Amino acid sequence: MTRLIDFCHLPQMEQQRELSPEERLAWLRLIRSENVGPITFFQLLGRFGTASKALEALPDLARKGGRKKPIRVCPAGEASREMEALLAFGGRMIAASEPDYPKALSMIADPPPVISLRGHAHLLNRDILAIVGARNASAVALRLTGQIAGGISRENIIVASGLARGIDTSAHRASLEGGTIAVVGGGLDYPYPRENEALQEEIYERGCVIAEQPMGTVPQARHFPRRNRIISGLALGVLVMEASPRSGSLITARMALEQGREVFAVPGSPMDPRAKGTNNLIRNGATLVEEAADIIDALESIRRRPLKEPDQPRLPFLDPVQPDEQELDRLRPDIITYLSPTPVEIDELIRLTGHPAATILTILLELELAGRIERHFGNRVSIVE
Amino acid sequence: MTRLIDFCHLPQMEQQRELSPEERLAWLRLIRSENVGPITFFQLLGRFGTASKALEALPDLARKGGRKKPIRVCPAGEASREMEALLAFGGRMIAASEPDYPKALSMIADPPPVISLRGHAHLLNRDILAIVGARNASAVALRLTGQIAGGISRENIIVASGLARGIDTSAHRASLEGGTIAVVGGGLDYPYPRENEALQEEIYERGCVIAEQPMGTVPQARHFPRRNRIISGLALGVLVMEASPRSGSLITARMALEQGREVFAVPGSPMDPRAKGTNNLIRNGATLVEEAADIIDALESIRRRPLKEPDQPRLPFLDPVQPDEQELDRLRPDIITYLSPTPVEIDELIRLTGHPAATILTILLELELAGRIERHFGNRVSIVE
Repeated sequence: MTRLIDFCHLPQMEQQRELSPEERLAWLRLIRSENVGPITFFQLLGRFGTASKALEALPDLARKGGRKKPIRVCPAGEASREMEALLAFGGRMIAASEPDYPKALSMIADPPPVISLRGHAHLLNRDILAIVGARNASAVALRLTGQIAGGISRENIIVASGLARGIDTSAHRASLEGGTIAVVGGGLDYPYPRENEALQEEIYERGCVIAEQPMGTVPQARHFPRRNRIISGLALGVLVMEASPRSGSLITARMALEQGREVFAVPGSPMDPRAKGTNNLIRNGATLVEEAADIIDALESIRRRPLKEPDQPRLPFLDPVQPDEQELDRLRPDIITYLSPTPVEIDELIRLTGHPAATILTILLELELAGRIERHFGNRVSIVE
Repeated sequence: MTRLIDFCHLPQMEQQRELSPEERLAWLRLIRSENVGPITFFQLLGRFGTASKALEALPDLARKGGRKKPIRVCPAGEASREMEALLAFGGRMIAASEPDYPKALSMIADPPPVISLRGHAHLLNRDILAIVGARNASAVALRLTGQIAGGISRENIIVASGLARGIDTSAHRASLEGGTIAVVGGGLDYPYPRENEALQEEIYERGCVIAEQPMGTVPQARHFPRRNRIISGLALGVLVMEASPRSGSLITARMALEQGREVFAVPGSPMDPRAKGTNNLIRNGATLVEEAADIIDALESIRRRPLKEPDQPRLPFLDPVQPDEQELDRLRPDIITYLSPTPVEIDELIRLTGHPAATILTILLELELAGRIERHFGNRVSIVE
C-alpha cells in the first residue's frame, strides 16, 4: 500500500538533551491534560514547538473539535506535586527527548512522553528481552521461566516483565542478579499485586521499576494493554512462556510485532490450554524456544543490526504551519461523516476524502482533544459513541 | 548444484500394465538376489530391458566388479515358493510397474520393486497420511493420536503407520473404520510385535498390511529404516506425534523431506524429552499440528497439486547401451580410488573424475553387485570395508 503522507521520527528526538525543570513540568502538564495521549502529545509538540505553547492552544483546539465544556488542562500545581512526590519516593522522571530515555522505546509509534522510574536507569538502554506469560502458569512453566531468565541474564541481557503473578514473578526473580526491569500498570509507588510487594521493593533497589501513570494511580484493566506496549517497546524481543487464547500475553506479542520486535514462544502439548496461545504464535512465525541458548543465538544477530522499523506506520509529522482556518471549518463535517465506531486507518481516510493530509490530521487532533474520537494501534481512529 | 547427469522416472513406470506370472517371478528373483537393492534393480532393468535378461547378466557383472565367489542368484524355485506361500496366506504381490502399485510410493527415489500385501489394496492409492511416534508415548500423546487419526479418517484420509507399540497402535486403532495401512518391517505373515498380533489380524481384514521382505522374515533392526521409507513414501505427509532425538520417527521425517513430502509435528513442553524431536522439527520448518483440522487444511492444498519432486536426486537412467568394455576396465581402478567408507554423492564422483556418467554408473553397479560398495540416501555410495 502506498503511503499518502510522510512519516518521520519525532522531531524532538533528533537533538537529545536534558529538559530544564520548567520544560519538564510543561511536558508533564501536557501529557496529564484531558484527552492528550502520546500521539496527540507529539503532534502538538510538532505543531507548536514547545509543550508550553501547546498547553496554551489546548482550549481553543478542543473547542474547534466540538467540545462544549472547557477541556481540563493539568494545572502547574498538580504537575509539581506529582514531581515532588516522585522525587520524595526516590524516583525520577525521564522525558522522551532526553538522553537517558530508553532508545528502543523511543522508536515505537506511541512512546510515553514521560516515564517515571525508580532504580537503575542505565538498565533501560541495555539489551532487553521481555518475558511474559500466564498468571496461572503451570509449575513446569514457572521452572522453565526461571531457567531461561537466569540463562539469558548470565549473558548480560536484561529481563523486562510486568510484575504479575506467575511467569512475570519467576522471570523477575531469576534475573534480579543480572538485571531486571518491571513495568507496572498503575503508579510507580502503588504495590501491585500485593503479594509481590516485597519483590517490587527489591526491584527498586536492584533493578528498575517503570510507570507511565502518575504516582498513586490504582492500576485498572484499561492500563494493562498500554503498559504491555512499554514492556515490548523496551525490548529487542518478547518471549511468551505460556498463554491461553485472548490473554494479555498475546496482546503483548501482537504489539511486539507491530513494533518490529522479535517474538519468541515456548511450545506445549496441544492438550494443555495454556499452550494454545504459544503454539499459535509459533504456527504464525514466532521463533520456537526451548532454552536460553535458543534466544541468545537469535538475539546475537539482532544485536548487530539496528531495530527494525515498526510494522505500523510511524507518527505523521504535524507541520508547524497551521492549515487555513476556513478550510478546516469547511472540511470538518465531511471528515466526521467518514468516521464510525469501527476504527479506520488515517491513511485510508486521506485517500477516501481526497483532502490534504495536514488538514485531516489537524481536524483529527481537534476531535481527539474534544473527546470525540479515539486512537487505536495501527494509526487508526474511531468515533466515540 | 548443477546436475551432471539426467535423471528421469523409471522407464518401466511409463506404460503401466500387469506383469505375466513369468515376468513377476523374474522380478521377484532379481530383487531377492544377492546385493540387489531397489536402485540396482531398476538400473539393471534399464540396462537389460527385462528382469530375466538382468538375471542372466548378474554373475558376469559381479565378477567384473571384483567378486571372487559367484554371486547368489535367487533360484526360480525359491521365488515360486515365496509366491505360493504369499497366495496361500491370502496375500498378493504388486510390482512397481503395475497399475495397483501405490502411485506416491512409485515416485520416491528407491521404491520397492515388489511389495507383498494382504487386505484392501485400493487403500494404497487413496490420500494417505503417515503417523509415527514414540513407542513409549505418554498417555496424553496416545489420546491425541487417537483423536487426530480418527479426525482425518473421517475426512477420507487413510492412515499409514508401522504397527509398533505406542503411537502406531493408537493411530491404527482409530483409523480401522476409515482405512488403515500397516507397513511391517519383517515378512507379511510375521506377527510383530507379538502384543499387536490381534490388531495385525484385524488390519488384514479391514485395512491393508504391506511388506517389502519375503514371507516369514523375522524383522531385524536394519529393516526398520527401509520400512520407514515406505511409510513416508506412501503418504502425502508424515505426522510425528512424539519423538525423542535420534528416534526412528525422526528418520521417517527426514525420509519424508527427502521424498518431497510434508512433515507435520505436534509440539510439546521443552521439559518433556519426548517433545525434543518434534519441537526441533517445527523449528526446522515442519508444520505445527494441534488437531486433525490443522492437517486437513494443509493436505487440502497438497491434494490439489501433484506430489513434489523429491529433494534427493532421482535415479540416474542407465542407458541400454553398455559402455565400452576396455574403457570400463581402464577406469575401474580410478573410480575405486575415489571411494571411501564416507558416502560420496555420485554426482560429485562424476565431477571429480571427469569420466562419462554412463561409465561410472556401470562401474558402480558392478561394484555393488560384487558387494564392494553400499548405496545411501541422497544418491550416495561408500566402500564396504
